[in-house]
Amino acid sequence: MPLVGVVMGSKSDAGSMKLAQDILEQLGIEYEVSVISAHRTPDKAREYGKSARERGIEVIIAAAGMAAHLPGVLASWTTIPVIGVPIASGELKGVDALLSIVQMPSGIPVACMGIDGAKNAAYLAAAILSLKHDKVREGYERFRKELSKG
Amino acid sequence: MPLVGVVMGSKSDAGSMKLAQDILEQLGIEYEVSVISAHRTPDKAREYGKSARERGIEVIIAAAGMAAHLPGVLASWTTIPVIGVPIASGELKGVDALLSIVQMPSGIPVACMGIDGAKNAAYLAAAILSLKHDKVREGYERFRKELSKG
Amino acid sequence: MPLVGVVMGSKSDAGSMKLAQDILEQLGIEYEVSVISAHRTPDKAREYGKSARERGIEVIIAAAGMAAHLPGVLASWTTIPVIGVPIASGELKGVDALLSIVQMPSGIPVACMGIDGAKNAAYLAAAILSLKHDKVREGYERFRKELSKG
Amino acid sequence: MPLVGVVMGSKSDAGSMKLAQDILEQLGIEYEVSVISAHRTPDKAREYGKSARERGIEVIIAAAGMAAHLPGVLASWTTIPVIGVPIASGELKGVDALLSIVQMPSGIPVACMGIDGAKNAAYLAAAILSLKHDKVREGYERFRKELSKG
Amino acid sequence: MPLVGVVMGSKSDAGSMKLAQDILEQLGIEYEVSVISAHRTPDKAREYGKSARERGIEVIIAAAGMAAHLPGVLASWTTIPVIGVPIASGELKGVDALLSIVQMPSGIPVACMGIDGAKNAAYLAAAILSLKHDKVREGYERFRKELSKG
Amino acid sequence: MPLVGVVMGSKSDAGSMKLAQDILEQLGIEYEVSVISAHRTPDKAREYGKSARERGIEVIIAAAGMAAHLPGVLASWTTIPVIGVPIASGELKGVDALLSIVQMPSGIPVACMGIDGAKNAAYLAAAILSLKHDKVREGYERFRKELSKG
Amino acid sequence: MPLVGVVMGSKSDAGSMKLAQDILEQLGIEYEVSVISAHRTPDKAREYGKSARERGIEVIIAAAGMAAHLPGVLASWTTIPVIGVPIASGELKGVDALLSIVQMPSGIPVACMGIDGAKNAAYLAAAILSLKHDKVREGYERFRKELSKG
Amino acid sequence: MPLVGVVMGSKSDAGSMKLAQDILEQLGIEYEVSVISAHRTPDKAREYGKSARERGIEVIIAAAGMAAHLPGVLASWTTIPVIGVPIASGELKGVDALLSIVQMPSGIPVACMGIDGAKNAAYLAAAILSLKHDKVREGYERFRKELSKG
Repeated sequence: MPLVGVVMGSKSDAGSMKLAQDILEQLGIEYEVSVISAHRTPDKAREYGKSARERGIEVIIAAAGMAAHLPGVLASWTTIPVIGVPIASGELKGVDALLSIVQMPSGIPVACMGIDGAKNAAYLAAAILSLKHDKVREGYERFRKELSKG
Repeated sequence: MPLVGVVMGSKSDAGSMKLAQDILEQLGIEYEVSVISAHRTPDKAREYGKSARERGIEVIIAAAGMAAHLPGVLASWTTIPVIGVPIASGELKGVDALLSIVQMPSGIPVACMGIDGAKNAAYLAAAILSLKHDKVREGYERFRKELSKG
Repeated sequence: MPLVGVVMGSKSDAGSMKLAQDILEQLGIEYEVSVISAHRTPDKAREYGKSARERGIEVIIAAAGMAAHLPGVLASWTTIPVIGVPIASGELKGVDALLSIVQMPSGIPVACMGIDGAKNAAYLAAAILSLKHDKVREGYERFRKELSKG
Repeated sequence: MPLVGVVMGSKSDAGSMKLAQDILEQLGIEYEVSVISAHRTPDKAREYGKSARERGIEVIIAAAGMAAHLPGVLASWTTIPVIGVPIASGELKGVDALLSIVQMPSGIPVACMGIDGAKNAAYLAAAILSLKHDKVREGYERFRKELSKG
Repeated sequence: MPLVGVVMGSKSDAGSMKLAQDILEQLGIEYEVSVISAHRTPDKAREYGKSARERGIEVIIAAAGMAAHLPGVLASWTTIPVIGVPIASGELKGVDALLSIVQMPSGIPVACMGIDGAKNAAYLAAAILSLKHDKVREGYERFRKELSKG
Repeated sequence: MPLVGVVMGSKSDAGSMKLAQDILEQLGIEYEVSVISAHRTPDKAREYGKSARERGIEVIIAAAGMAAHLPGVLASWTTIPVIGVPIASGELKGVDALLSIVQMPSGIPVACMGIDGAKNAAYLAAAILSLKHDKVREGYERFRKELSKG
Repeated sequence: MPLVGVVMGSKSDAGSMKLAQDILEQLGIEYEVSVISAHRTPDKAREYGKSARERGIEVIIAAAGMAAHLPGVLASWTTIPVIGVPIASGELKGVDALLSIVQMPSGIPVACMGIDGAKNAAYLAAAILSLKHDKVREGYERFRKELSKG
Repeated sequence: MPLVGVVMGSKSDAGSMKLAQDILEQLGIEYEVSVISAHRTPDKAREYGKSARERGIEVIIAAAGMAAHLPGVLASWTTIPVIGVPIASGELKGVDALLSIVQMPSGIPVACMGIDGAKNAAYLAAAILSLKHDKVREGYERFRKELSKG
């Protein structure tokens, strides 16, 4: 049963999000992957958000480019933590996506990563899950210890 | 029966949108006003978008600040033209709202105005309605003729 | 008889605007294509704008790069809706064109699309024409229904 | 025993962070408040980060302005989730702080909020703690339900 | 008979342009002042540009804010040098006007000043007129000599 | 005897400035070309500026990239009109050069072109010289008439 | 005999630079203060730079706003270290000055501070002088030790 | 014994920093090179900073990309002058690194170079060392004299 829901706004984001999936796998965290557009398939986004918690999802990673509404729209439909990844696409190179994700209004938070920061989305998911899942914590702390050796 | 639906993301946008309402009134265009947050009240946004055409609304003017998802979210739920007004709020002074509105993905267009461009949203609504409603066209052309006198 | 006038500031924008034309064709909307520079051929721009409505044009799509004055200049000469498409050209990658199009002064609105947003210009034209032309509306709603299947 | 560590880079951020504290209190979440500068008091930052988990802290909210290194520096010393709040101070109005917080390198994630987004930092902390603490979840869901009434 | 035509897009620019007029007066350069909107009164702009040279105008100073098309539009109708002054108005504080003026396409140049750079527009007009009018040159060189005393 | 002094900050700007030289040649305007760095060879810049008028130069075109001080430095040493061309070099793609050239302090104007706007620098030089040199004016007006044919 | 030369481009920068002078005094570092405009008084700038080392100046702090050429121009005339302080003035709030100072071409370095970073200019001067002057080092280290107490 | 410590945040910065090393060698300045991440290896950064002066290092050159904390973090652990080099990496092309380095809070200065300004970091190090080391000064002045020949 997946703990993390990886959602991307378009199939063209798949390469970028593969980096997050690889890390989730290395850390032994179960996940599922979906392609949902906040604008083209709003009902699918709504159903995903509304059912996420009861399906056992504990963290959502949502990636989108341009006027990147996906993370905010998913967050509007659920209370579980949503991590947003601005994807660099088009001429504004992700600045549009960054501002569309990070500048959320009060009450509906999204945890924003850097532009194309799919890897850190997976690490933050691990850090969050570590509060509850000891095995995830052990894996994440082992990774960080390795990292600190330079 | 209102032809234009004026929607704002927060009550704090009311002063700004009053400018649009004044112009609609001067041009004799019926309108309704709603406060709907794309993030805090997503079901209300969905219902508004899905019912707009059958309620006789022909153009939606949607205003929001920061990560301004409202125009795009309404556009995701309806096929009638949506005009987006980026509101300057917070430290980014509407640049965030501008990019969140104007950089919509292919398939779900939003007609973006300038920052705090509520007046032009009303004029564009008039220009659009002019295609079908002769009286609106007459009023809008009279206004433009006056304007051209400098 | 064309309902949509597609106008570009330079022949170098043709590739970009072909995307709009393809969509207009898919939706069965008649259109004409012109190359007019607001600065190099201002009289041509004036004549185009002044004659557009009487020639049956109901929506203008105008695309330009850099200090992109074309959409605003056409809007100054006509009262039919003008949709502006900022083209990414030169080192500022369309940010200059975006601001030159979207920040129009009160009274002369332009419906601004995203940078290189030619496709959405065609979809917005369809949404606008849908208010009056049932066949266009049917085509546009069919497209949106398809899109919503993801 | 506090679950959330609220840390600010300077006493001048206190007014801003009070908004986060108020929300934590409304949601019944225990917290502690510290003033630590990543640059002026680096040893204090190190000790805070290294001891946080064993002292029972489960989420850190770190706020700073300008070249806002505090969230990243705390994240370098701990594996518990760090939420960063860019504070608008100085002439760049928080754009500098936003980029200094959100653009973290791979391996050391920080969950970035919008500029002056202290409130959402508290809500995100609640969403994260909800995974483990049922009472926090109940409080946060009650808040969101109220919010959705518009 | 005026040598310099000072044109502003809106009466609200008058305070700003007064600074240019004061300098022209100090340097003994004749000028005229007009309010012409490129968008609201395009025919007036056209007539101004087309008649400028024959009326004896040798340099045009054109000031406008937001999507500041006025300098470019005047330049499209005349071959005499046009100096553009981006006026800070609205939330983008003249960045929009700067890009709308400076990024002119090849063939139709505008000499762009800094944001709210009305004074330098007058000094540049003096430098240009100095090539032909000895008295202007003497005045401008006297001013520069004074300036160099610090 | 050259009327226009084309100056570039570095040999790497030569390709860009060749476009200006070609236009000056087409318009039959005599020019000279120099490579002078405002920072590396400040004495050369000073001598160039101080001697320009007496050597018969009537307009200077100065091009530079990054912290582009060359146009301003030349303007500090002369009273003849200086046209500045921001060159796109380095990662900021000419935005740094644009601001370093256009935001001149009061008293020492520089006529700023768009990024990489070497061509328009030549056209503006022609427009300026037209005030005094009938043959240049005839050439420039012929060019503009051709241009207006689209 | 002053070790530090504090230079500002305009008298209006005096308030800002007073902050640097206060710190130099607290650290017991001798300094002199001058007002020199790179553009209005270029000869004064040249003489200052060329004579600085022989007059015993070991570090220059140069502050300027807008197209802030002063630090770079002084650096072009001397080989002693130049610290540049971008002053926020005008609508671009120091972004123009920052880029005009920091983006120096290879060979002529300027040590750039943050916008309005006059205080840090004084501290950096102290850090540099510490390499040679033990008393300055003792003062600066005492200050830093105090600072680290939080 | 090295006088300059060249530190980079990641091995991927090595090509960029090689340019600084080449210049240090040409000027006969001893240096050492280290790879230290402020975030991944914070203890290594701390030890480097704390031991630098006693190991004879007189200037540190620190280069990093994105949320470039390395120069500031090193500066927090030492009182010797730190020169920061923002590296262009990722989609923001060094703007993020520039702001993360230059906007340091009062008390902990970093001498910021331009984006990818590794060469100037070496030249500034030479200018600083020149205050104390005559041989370095002779080399640096010889270089500048050569440079001034154009």
